[in-house]
Amino acid sequence: MSIDNARIGPMANAIRALSMDAVQAANSGHPGMPMGMADVATVLWGEYLKFDPSAPDWMDRDRFVLSAGHGSMLIYSLLHLTGYANPTMDEISRFRQLGSPCAGHPENFLLPGVECTTGPLGQGVAMAVGMAMAERHLNAKFGDELVDHRTWVIAGDGCLMEGVNHEAAGLAGNLKLGQLIVFWDDNNITIDGAVELSSNEDILGRYDAYKWHTVRCDGHNPDSIRAAIDEALADPRPSLIACKTVIGKGAPNMQGTSKVHGAALGADEIAAAREELGWPYEPFVIPSDILADWRKTGEKGKLAHGEWAQRLESSDKRGEWEQHMMPVGDFASAALESFITDLAAEPKKVATRKASEMALGPLTEKLTSLIGGSADLTGSNNTKTKFTEPFTAEDYAGRYVYYGIREFGMACAMNGMALHGGVVPYGGTFLIFSDYARNAIRMAALQQIRSVFVLTHDSIGLGEDGPTHQPIEQVMSLRLIPNLNVFRPADVIETAECWALALETPDTPSVLALTRQNLPQLRGANMPGGGDENWTRLTNRSARGGYRLKSADAARKVILMASGSEVEVAMDVAKALEADGIGADVLSMPCLELFEAQDAAYKDDLLPHVNPSEILRVSIEAGVTMGWERYTMADGLNIGIDRFGASAPAGDLFERFGFTADTITAKIKERLA
Amino acid sequence: MSIDNARIGPMANAIRALSMDAVQAANSGHPGMPMGMADVATVLWGEYLKFDPSAPDWMDRDRFVLSAGHGSMLIYSLLHLTGYANPTMDEISRFRQLGSPCAGHPENFLLPGVECTTGPLGQGVAMAVGMAMAERHLNAKFGDELVDHRTWVIAGDGCLMEGVNHEAAGLAGNLKLGQLIVFWDDNNITIDGAVELSSNEDILGRYDAYKWHTVRCDGHNPDSIRAAIDEALADPRPSLIACKTVIGKGAPNMQGTSKVHGAALGADEIAAAREELGWPYEPFVIPSDILADWRKTGEKGKLAHGEWAQRLESSDKRGEWEQHMMPVGDFASAALESFITDLAAEPKKVATRKASEMALGPLTEKLTSLIGGSADLTGSNNTKTKFTEPFTAEDYAGRYVYYGIREFGMACAMNGMALHGGVVPYGGTFLIFSDYARNAIRMAALQQIRSVFVLTHDSIGLGEDGPTHQPIEQVMSLRLIPNLNVFRPADVIETAECWALALETPDTPSVLALTRQNLPQLRGANMPGGGDENWTRLTNRSARGGYRLKSADAARKVILMASGSEVEVAMDVAKALEADGIGADVLSMPCLELFEAQDAAYKDDLLPHVNPSEILRVSIEAGVTMGWERYTMADGLNIGIDRFGASAPAGDLFERFGFTADTITAKIKERLA
Repeated sequence: MSIDNARIGPMANAIRALSMDAVQAANSGHPGMPMGMADVATVLWGEYLKFDPSAPDWMDRDRFVLSAGHGSMLIYSLLHLTGYANPTMDEISRFRQLGSPCAGHPENFLLPGVECTTGPLGQGVAMAVGMAMAERHLNAKFGDELVDHRTWVIAGDGCLMEGVNHEAAGLAGNLKLGQLIVFWDDNNITIDGAVELSSNEDILGRYDAYKWHTVRCDGHNPDSIRAAIDEALADPRPSLIACKTVIGKGAPNMQGTSKVHGAALGADEIAAAREELGWPYEPFVIPSDILADWRKTGEKGKLAHGEWAQRLESSDKRGEWEQHMMPVGDFASAALESFITDLAAEPKKVATRKASEMALGPLTEKLTSLIGGSADLTGSNNTKTKFTEPFTAEDYAGRYVYYGIREFGMACAMNGMALHGGVVPYGGTFLIFSDYARNAIRMAALQQIRSVFVLTHDSIGLGEDGPTHQPIEQVMSLRLIPNLNVFRPADVIETAECWALALETPDTPSVLALTRQNLPQLRGANMPGGGDENWTRLTNRSARGGYRLKSADAARKVILMASGSEVEVAMDVAKALEADGIGADVLSMPCLELFEAQDAAYKDDLLPHVNPSEILRVSIEAGVTMGWERYTMADGLNIGIDRFGASAPAGDLFERFGFTADTITAKIKERLA
Repeated sequence: MSIDNARIGPMANAIRALSMDAVQAANSGHPGMPMGMADVATVLWGEYLKFDPSAPDWMDRDRFVLSAGHGSMLIYSLLHLTGYANPTMDEISRFRQLGSPCAGHPENFLLPGVECTTGPLGQGVAMAVGMAMAERHLNAKFGDELVDHRTWVIAGDGCLMEGVNHEAAGLAGNLKLGQLIVFWDDNNITIDGAVELSSNEDILGRYDAYKWHTVRCDGHNPDSIRAAIDEALADPRPSLIACKTVIGKGAPNMQGTSKVHGAALGADEIAAAREELGWPYEPFVIPSDILADWRKTGEKGKLAHGEWAQRLESSDKRGEWEQHMMPVGDFASAALESFITDLAAEPKKVATRKASEMALGPLTEKLTSLIGGSADLTGSNNTKTKFTEPFTAEDYAGRYVYYGIREFGMACAMNGMALHGGVVPYGGTFLIFSDYARNAIRMAALQQIRSVFVLTHDSIGLGEDGPTHQPIEQVMSLRLIPNLNVFRPADVIETAECWALALETPDTPSVLALTRQNLPQLRGANMPGGGDENWTRLTNRSARGGYRLKSADAARKVILMASGSEVEVAMDVAKALEADGIGADVLSMPCLELFEAQDAAYKDDLLPHVNPSEILRVSIEAGVTMGWERYTMADGLNIGIDRFGASAPAGDLFERFGFTADTITAKIKERLA
């Protein structure tokens, strides 16, 4: 359905006017991109994008990602103009004000129709790759009948210059994601000035090298835009459409310069722009004929949605579809029940990365929406199970992604999959390389989505690879990210428990920090931590984040708290103390965030509010000590590592850095003396 | 100087033997890469690389970067064989053991001749770009006579797949760094298997797009290697040489597979490899003729070094050279003295990012080795001064780098410059995007180099851009990195003080976390914090990390501690408390790391060890609270933000999140009641 070319201009000008007026009202924001890309957006949303404004969550809708998120007024304009319930014009007029869903950058949790939060450059494109992967996977499973939609992206020079763009584009090229189409706003301007200041790259040449389809268009000429899109649609490869545009198009004295990028145009320039655009209307007023044109654009999608609903209704695959779409969190614990109960009877000494692989067995078998992967460390992260076949360009039905050496790209793609829905992503790398993916982990937390990051080799316990590979500050620094659960399980049972918990929080991503080295099982029949013979979701002891693994035998003088591999050490220390008549509790603390969420009574029971001289609190963790003072108090003892590690076998390192029961016991006795 | 082709094989086999034997002895490590790249390395070090084993710090040496750092036995072999003092054969035989400088990955602080620490993939190439930039800059200043060396890199598939490679290669291409030559170990193998699993990229095509020179060679044929290098030397662009190699070459049953990548070959395969290579010698034994061939390779460099020293001796530029190479730390404080003294007399209310720009004025004027830049946020980071002209392909004498939208690439390039020496790099981005560059910041700390990261927009105080741009956990999480000084100055004077401190620590990188919003000056004549009328290095109050800005007037009941923009709030809170007869100290804490380093007497004076019921400790910082318990103790009060921010004007946000004097004062009174 083509819109009359004569109508494209006024429709696009509605975007331009809303954008410049909202930025002016806020005296803050980015008018340049929405004004520059208004024509492309009008053609895309008016003629190509499959969307139903009355059902922003319709599963088979096209996904639209504004990777250049600073141009947020573009998406707010589009959602309003095409007839989404929000944003209202009042909300648009309060752009960037407290309480308006029209935030500085688009936030998926504030507005239906915003598919993902963007602003941190490059990540929008990379999340779109994940969305396109999820689409192809569900298409392979359910066919064109139920799943056949595209992922469209608008990206700026910044998105393409960021390193993650290389990872995302390479991944998409190898996976031949033909349903992915990226518009590059080729306006030759960055904040510092002309692109030439920092780049002379042949961007299309680079995308050719990734085996993408590339094409150019005049971003202000509807026919040229259509021709490029039609060519992209016809090509089986992912497409990059370079749209030659003038940034801030319509602002006659400032367009084409970096001045229009990130600041209000000012009253004079806005008046001049109204003249230039032939837009005599007041701010936040859209004439009814132009609004009517815009509202028509949603009709095709509504119709398509209705047809789709009918197809689903009568589909052979309806039952399978409905089962697939059920919340996996409801089933995760059940999938693990017999696994954990068996462990209770027959203990296993394994690395927690191996324990994770063991737990993933029943999980990937029973939860078919789980899609795993690794950034080229499959054998080290233990992320692949026999139930997950490779996800490849030849077989999108596979559920295991070889992400390549692309940690950031992987994390973004996982976020895109989680945002798309219908799949639940997990992916592995070394914990140290969470640094590479850190902002994507944060973005999972901000976007309130369930990506599960399997981060192995979680301390100096990895041994010989040395300080570049040994996490010191990573566990604690991940704990600082809001709305992220950081799990560091102590044994095979806790690992399974943490997996269940990670899958039960659809609005919270998780990190599983796992060891390279073997750890003894601490719970189960005849184990110091007691039995889990009838393990169920309700008896998941990790669910409280911290719990008493061992109570003092003698009069309690010490409370030891530890996570992961140091819980074993804490148990040995407790034993040594008890042998000397010093009673010691051991608290296993697999997840400080969940522990924080417990009520005061529970916390006080574990950490009673008494004078440190009566009960000494000791934290033991092979990482930085800062942060643990929350629990040990100023007069407690914090056993950790506040320097970089070293290259040596793990046992030598634990001894070198004081993580032996002997050393720690001596320190405690000295303090008690 | 060409080595007889017949000798290349045995010389390369010495590398192969040492590599496989050391990995076998450690039962840990990566034999595949050194064995595969042994021929290339032999031709490079034997015939092209300019180095003097007796003077690893010679300024005009070529730089050799083993970006694929897991192949560390390659560089250990080369250093030993060519006659560096270390590693000794004994040290090689203790590869990956505690105390050996032959760590799992090459560490610049353990071995002269290791130009940088590598292992985190991609960063080696990116640091090499910085080295090549430093070389061109010094060349522009001092001419070919004193500075004319190359930067050579060996990179693997992983280095090229990482996102940072895109940033680094794009930067190098735009800057036309023709003295940079990267060997790509094109062995078609990653850890998970064949490269095709995750990538079908045309890597040479991509580098062509960056405007590099690209060429292929047979990595096991000396003539082919030489031809490629000669072509690269003749080309004015940076060069990528694709070396087709067999990973683990020489291990007859395993070569060419991912099995040789990251594990010992095993006794049987090593025996077979000895057979295959014609290497009948015991482990760690190099026959004298082969060793003699290797030792000869250093002679040319020694000669060149001698000639260079003579040129320096007689050069017109000798005085300038010597002055340029003096430690900048000795002069930083003096450069700022009158600036700070003037401020004390005439206070300024400015954003600390602006204060930073003001301090950079005299610093960049007087310290000519400072090279600044920004990742496309020059006007926001306030990193450019009138003394720093652009550093471009046309003018390498410039001292301001337009890094483009490449935070990670920038941080790596800065590290490379710092490692190269002769220049002192600083670079800016938004604090939130420290996440993108996080591992490079860590690598600066690990490598003990002075990169100064200017990170502006340091809290919700940035306002409308919203939660994607508002640091919450960033300041505290950077504090967790060992050997990194995180400065968060409270006003214009502290900003200048922190700049001086950042430049005075050649072995420790610094972060300056700076505000977008204006802050009143707190010190100086008639200021609450007292005078700095005769400021000198010795009166730099920030040097202790924390200090008492205001003493209680009434009987002390409260100690307020704060950093950055919240010091102003703390002063207002103190005023309100004092008005009610509640005495309150205010501690300004611009750098917790430096405060930690103070002696107990100083710390006890600021934070006396008394019962919390006598003196309440309160921390105020617009970021996560975790970590502050170290100073407030369990019964203190931590005012912070433990959730994501929001989009609104800064004033509204500070009110919304409780950062007003009224709200905080009320909380304190409630606690005291």
